[in-house]
Amino acid sequence: MLYGQDERTAAIYAPVQAELERVEAKLKGLASEATTATEDLRPLLDYVAETGGKRIRPALTLLASHSYPHDSDKLVLMASAVELLHLATLIHDDTVDDSSTRRGRATVSNVWGHHVSVLFGDYVFATSATFVCDTESLRIMRRFSETIMELASGELIEYFGAYDPNQARHLYDDRIYRKTASLFCTAGESGAVLAGAPEEEVQAMKRYAYNIGMAFQIGDDLLDFEGEESNMGKPVGSDLRNGVLTLPTILLMERYPEDNPVAAFFRDKDNPDKLQRVLDMINDSSIMQDSRDVVRNYCNRACAELEILPQGEARDSLAALAEYVPDRQR
Amino acid sequence: MLYGQDERTAAIYAPVQAELERVEAKLKGLASEATTATEDLRPLLDYVAETGGKRIRPALTLLASHSYPHDSDKLVLMASAVELLHLATLIHDDTVDDSSTRRGRATVSNVWGHHVSVLFGDYVFATSATFVCDTESLRIMRRFSETIMELASGELIEYFGAYDPNQARHLYDDRIYRKTASLFCTAGESGAVLAGAPEEEVQAMKRYAYNIGMAFQIGDDLLDFEGEESNMGKPVGSDLRNGVLTLPTILLMERYPEDNPVAAFFRDKDNPDKLQRVLDMINDSSIMQDSRDVVRNYCNRACAELEILPQGEARDSLAALAEYVPDRQR
Repeated sequence: MLYGQDERTAAIYAPVQAELERVEAKLKGLASEATTATEDLRPLLDYVAETGGKRIRPALTLLASHSYPHDSDKLVLMASAVELLHLATLIHDDTVDDSSTRRGRATVSNVWGHHVSVLFGDYVFATSATFVCDTESLRIMRRFSETIMELASGELIEYFGAYDPNQARHLYDDRIYRKTASLFCTAGESGAVLAGAPEEEVQAMKRYAYNIGMAFQIGDDLLDFEGEESNMGKPVGSDLRNGVLTLPTILLMERYPEDNPVAAFFRDKDNPDKLQRVLDMINDSSIMQDSRDVVRNYCNRACAELEILPQGEARDSLAALAEYVPDRQR
Repeated sequence: MLYGQDERTAAIYAPVQAELERVEAKLKGLASEATTATEDLRPLLDYVAETGGKRIRPALTLLASHSYPHDSDKLVLMASAVELLHLATLIHDDTVDDSSTRRGRATVSNVWGHHVSVLFGDYVFATSATFVCDTESLRIMRRFSETIMELASGELIEYFGAYDPNQARHLYDDRIYRKTASLFCTAGESGAVLAGAPEEEVQAMKRYAYNIGMAFQIGDDLLDFEGEESNMGKPVGSDLRNGVLTLPTILLMERYPEDNPVAAFFRDKDNPDKLQRVLDMINDSSIMQDSRDVVRNYCNRACAELEILPQGEARDSLAALAEYVPDRQR
């Protein structure tokens, strides 16, 4: 089992386990490719390769390719690029949020400072792009660049919209598409495209990945309300405290368009009673259950997209992944 | 004359003036392409498009293409990508250096804060990459990604090496290649490649651009010692104060390997007398003149590379650009 995997993900990833290990080796090998001139970057590259995580994005790329005869080297490159892009966004996100730890480990900006973390994040973004270039697919290269635009704009839109109670549901959907589902789409689409899947199946894979990505981010947003402080490493309701609306608070606002408790908190954000009132109203309603239903609906839609794909263990794993997402913990 | 050009650059750019204006329009048009979802980015995109500057990099791309029959739309895209990449690096450089102004104008990080400037820089990097994708050249796309790695690693190497007096000349050369000449090379190479120049001429153009880029950066480093505070917007010897060795200080260290005045300042960097001693020793020697000779040598080597290119106004302009670089002011 790779670092960061649990037994259930290990079973889901089984058809692509060998290639996932090559992705891991590729990430760990980045530091050894540093030249004398860039040897200062070696500790940073080593640190990033050891970030861990469930590697769901590269697994998605590999699983999306496995129903077709494919060039394993190209797919390993692409899966590595997808994970490296994700790691680059974490470096910058932690920098701008001034986060000291992520999953109990010091962030790059905490260890090396903001000066280094901004520039090193750029370096990792660009490294991921060189991997995509080596797949020799212009289509995927363009999609990859657009994904970086979507990731950055998603974070910017969230920042600009903080403490603004006038955010309808469709703006939330757009924001989490940019922040998360965009890269899932690229992970799935690139796997299918590079394996030469018929266009209809590429599009189905992209829609599958979109739905999984949306479910994944909403699930993450729900953990922010459900988690215990010791598990999460941050207080319950962190997003709300930071003025970020997610599905539960948006559903609450839809239900109380008058006397809106979220707007009341945003107007008086240093008042813990106002925050507690929002949390209590969510807990005393069906909102968390309704939100979990939304996650499950996305996963069901994802599964439905798999029907036109060739039958086999890769498709079974993708279906199992859709079952896993609603249950997963961080 | 475009904003940022003087009469001399306007004359040099004359053969590509129409295309440079289309580059300008492309940069200014970025904001209007923003959708409802990304409308928060519009003021940022407008601000960046109005950064100004001499546009030497896009001019280089266009001039490199003009000796050959070329697809003007593709070249305008590529030239825009090159300038946009340069603007993206300025956004992040100003963020990590905490610079409040650049050429008398507030930096993005000053106006919008670090949170926005880091993420918006990412957005601009990625936007430039989409332009390159639209040229449909995998070769240039890969070179472009490598350039971003070189730009970022150049800045990181400079940061890690600050206040280290043990930096030989070849490390300085490598550092300024990464920081500046790399993107010049890409500007020149991409113009020639996209215009279908024979490979031998592509390589000559790349070497021309390398030499111009090295001359450009050393010239910049010399201005740091020559400039008056009112012109430069920063005190004389800023690089040295920040522990960054450039050609004059490296030449000084080569001449005084014992009793090294730079090392003495780095050991005692809050002592203005130690700083002044370095500045005086540079001014009382032939070092500035020797450094200017180095710049001129690079420009001469650049000119020599032009000999195998087709004769014509584009080649004449490239030669004139090599004459201009040693004389230019910021």
